[in-house]
Amino acid sequence: MRQDHLISATQLSRADIEAVLDRAAEIDADVGAWQGRRDGTVLGLCFFEPSTRTRMSFDTAMKRLGGRTIDMGSVESSSVKKGETLADTVRVIEGYADALVLRHPSEGAAKMATEFVDVPLVNAGDGAGQHPTQTLLDLYTMRENAGLDDVTVGIMGDLKYGRTVHSLAAALTNFDVRQHFVSPESLQLPRSVRYDLHESGAQVREHTDLDEVLSDLDVLYVTRIQRERFPDENEYRKVAGEYQIDTDDLDAAKDSLTVMHPLPRVDEIAPEVDETDHAKYFEQAHNGVPVRMALLDMLLENAEGGSQ
Amino acid sequence: MRQDHLISATQLSRADIEAVLDRAAEIDADVGAWQGRRDGTVLGLCFFEPSTRTRMSFDTAMKRLGGRTIDMGSVESSSVKKGETLADTVRVIEGYADALVLRHPSEGAAKMATEFVDVPLVNAGDGAGQHPTQTLLDLYTMRENAGLDDVTVGIMGDLKYGRTVHSLAAALTNFDVRQHFVSPESLQLPRSVRYDLHESGAQVREHTDLDEVLSDLDVLYVTRIQRERFPDENEYRKVAGEYQIDTDDLDAAKDSLTVMHPLPRVDEIAPEVDETDHAKYFEQAHNGVPVRMALLDMLLENAEGGSQ
Amino acid sequence: MRQDHLISATQLSRADIEAVLDRAAEIDADVGAWQGRRDGTVLGLCFFEPSTRTRMSFDTAMKRLGGRTIDMGSVESSSVKKGETLADTVRVIEGYADALVLRHPSEGAAKMATEFVDVPLVNAGDGAGQHPTQTLLDLYTMRENAGLDDVTVGIMGDLKYGRTVHSLAAALTNFDVRQHFVSPESLQLPRSVRYDLHESGAQVREHTDLDEVLSDLDVLYVTRIQRERFPDENEYRKVAGEYQIDTDDLDAAKDSLTVMHPLPRVDEIAPEVDETDHAKYFEQAHNGVPVRMALLDMLLENAEGGSQ
Repeated sequence: MRQDHLISATQLSRADIEAVLDRAAEIDADVGAWQGRRDGTVLGLCFFEPSTRTRMSFDTAMKRLGGRTIDMGSVESSSVKKGETLADTVRVIEGYADALVLRHPSEGAAKMATEFVDVPLVNAGDGAGQHPTQTLLDLYTMRENAGLDDVTVGIMGDLKYGRTVHSLAAALTNFDVRQHFVSPESLQLPRSVRYDLHESGAQVREHTDLDEVLSDLDVLYVTRIQRERFPDENEYRKVAGEYQIDTDDLDAAKDSLTVMHPLPRVDEIAPEVDETDHAKYFEQAHNGVPVRMALLDMLLENAEGGSQ
Repeated sequence: MRQDHLISATQLSRADIEAVLDRAAEIDADVGAWQGRRDGTVLGLCFFEPSTRTRMSFDTAMKRLGGRTIDMGSVESSSVKKGETLADTVRVIEGYADALVLRHPSEGAAKMATEFVDVPLVNAGDGAGQHPTQTLLDLYTMRENAGLDDVTVGIMGDLKYGRTVHSLAAALTNFDVRQHFVSPESLQLPRSVRYDLHESGAQVREHTDLDEVLSDLDVLYVTRIQRERFPDENEYRKVAGEYQIDTDDLDAAKDSLTVMHPLPRVDEIAPEVDETDHAKYFEQAHNGVPVRMALLDMLLENAEGGSQ
Repeated sequence: MRQDHLISATQLSRADIEAVLDRAAEIDADVGAWQGRRDGTVLGLCFFEPSTRTRMSFDTAMKRLGGRTIDMGSVESSSVKKGETLADTVRVIEGYADALVLRHPSEGAAKMATEFVDVPLVNAGDGAGQHPTQTLLDLYTMRENAGLDDVTVGIMGDLKYGRTVHSLAAALTNFDVRQHFVSPESLQLPRSVRYDLHESGAQVREHTDLDEVLSDLDVLYVTRIQRERFPDENEYRKVAGEYQIDTDDLDAAKDSLTVMHPLPRVDEIAPEVDETDHAKYFEQAHNGVPVRMALLDMLLENAEGGSQ
């Protein structure tokens, strides 16, 4: 991977992705061996929107590499409130840190920020834009459990607004994966995403009913359908209920089916599923650590190479 | 101590307690020697309620063992707001961390959480329930200053609602300690607590006036009487004033009397007392560090043993 | 430097200041060499007011010395809300930490706090009072770029309310520096500050127009004029506009002019200036790290010496 920053999963070739996943697997096999790897490195966490799991996962990743983190804290208590621009904020924090992680509500914010900083910057979500490390940990989890060659993946839930889903679907076109999309009609893939998938030559089919495809799936990736997408509570309940899964639903699935979810979940997956071998969503959350360790380590390597 | 988690002080035998206090004393004697002890360990701080001193004390404890901490941050900015269950939150953070500290407003939350995680979990307060590390540091402070054999302890203030007091009183029944409880009538020990103390064979007496017992005490443990427990301000002032101490009050005490307080205090102990040799409440707060270092170290030891 | 605490820049002699700046320069030349310097040291961050850059800068400084930090968090979620005094809060945190950094809204708070703690304490701003590490990093940036001997410095903007400006002006009287103050009439230096500068024998002149002096300057230190200082928006705009600089304004300046700003800026300096060699304000922000590393290291050295 010869990148200075990670802004979008689309900037990564199949070889880039595999390089990150390979290093993540190497790390996950013996995480303790990496503890002194980045001793003395300081990572700046710049979250302009609240985040629990992404922030904690990057925080853990840097610390398990032996480095330190500094946290901007909430926007409410920051200089941003005094009218400071994003460009100024990231340049100041660059003066403290060896790499930056940025989450921002505005699409394009991360790309813009890279025009002002020299240290590696990782996009941890920019509004309706990209969240590439989520995609990498999703791919890692699929590869570890079902492989990424000749597999059938179902992606279910809110396919219209789900940033995670669009990014994952695009990344999967790098691999020999058949993609099935399952959603209510009102939450189908946006036309532009569908167009891009077809252009890339991906094998894509859309469904409104999980039963049409469940028995074929190697992976089922479930996402949340948000209440606020619906005009009234009744319609929400009716629709959402059809896209929730429990152990009865999974009777029709392959024994080897891997069930994933980016979390947090509300009621898309019944708690009883947690006890089955299908459930890989907590493992998936855990995988954020080795994947982000791998990515940070490789970006820091590139930065060192570039400055030599 | 052969425990996987610490949920309640009542789960600890006298031998367990003494093992923790012994190791705390060993640590306190040369804290620098423990700096590399838990290099590479990550502790997850999950505070579902605000906390300054307990959170900072655990944070310091892990860092003085050479480990790292990751902090969930406030509930307001977390996935909890999106409807995530406690069981899911702790399982995700378990995926990042080697041990967890949990504070939660609901009684029983810590016990419940241990059903979902495999790493050691320490209860840092669950509503009206338990806060066992407070009890351990209280016992440690008593042992260092007055001993825990053949001593007379007075516990004063809000004995009705004070979680700290109930837990301490129960733990003291493991030792040869005479307990005197001093409070206004409206804030006496709950019947169930009094019953349990008598059942355990403890030597217990109750008073409304500190003067009845002060001269006999080796330790006086003062707690705060909260304004909100009283229907009107006047009644509060009248009652609270009788349970505040200053240097004049302490003239009647033994020279060796140890005065303790879980802090924060408001006006229960006059600042002039701070300058006397009686005052051990800041030392008591400090003792949270070696006691929590000892406890975390022992739980991590047990976890390693269990996984071998 | 033989100080236990740093409360005000005025407590530092020229020799003290130079000792800190010399060590900062030594650190900045090879920051990695200092990574193990304060292994095992814990710094308590006590910010009773929000702060991004000062807090992050101290946090980074301690971590780049190999130490750890513990953060009190916001006042809203702390024991302060329960009515705890500042004296109690700092004594409790002293029980966890080897040194303290304190920001507080009340002038004199830091000085008062030193009466209660034995560990080194650094004032990181006390209301309208002092913020001495800002002054030190300003001096360091001037010395690195223009020197502190036989130089001409212009200080522009809000000279009436600017704590940073008063402290810097006082510190500059230790050096062979000519000081020019540029501001609207309504925001000129307070009479008491002007008096002190004259008493110290400083070479001081005041202006309402930057053009009168710009071509003579080696350093231009710009500060923000705050909207809330003016009765109405129109008057603010008219006045503020005259104290904003862009590249056209700088045509009249020396090629070697150093432009500084304590940040955050709003529109006092046009973004186009960032691209010029004049712009040193991001370097200035960065300099907070080596300067605070030097200061913390020296205070910790003094504390060790004192306890031996």
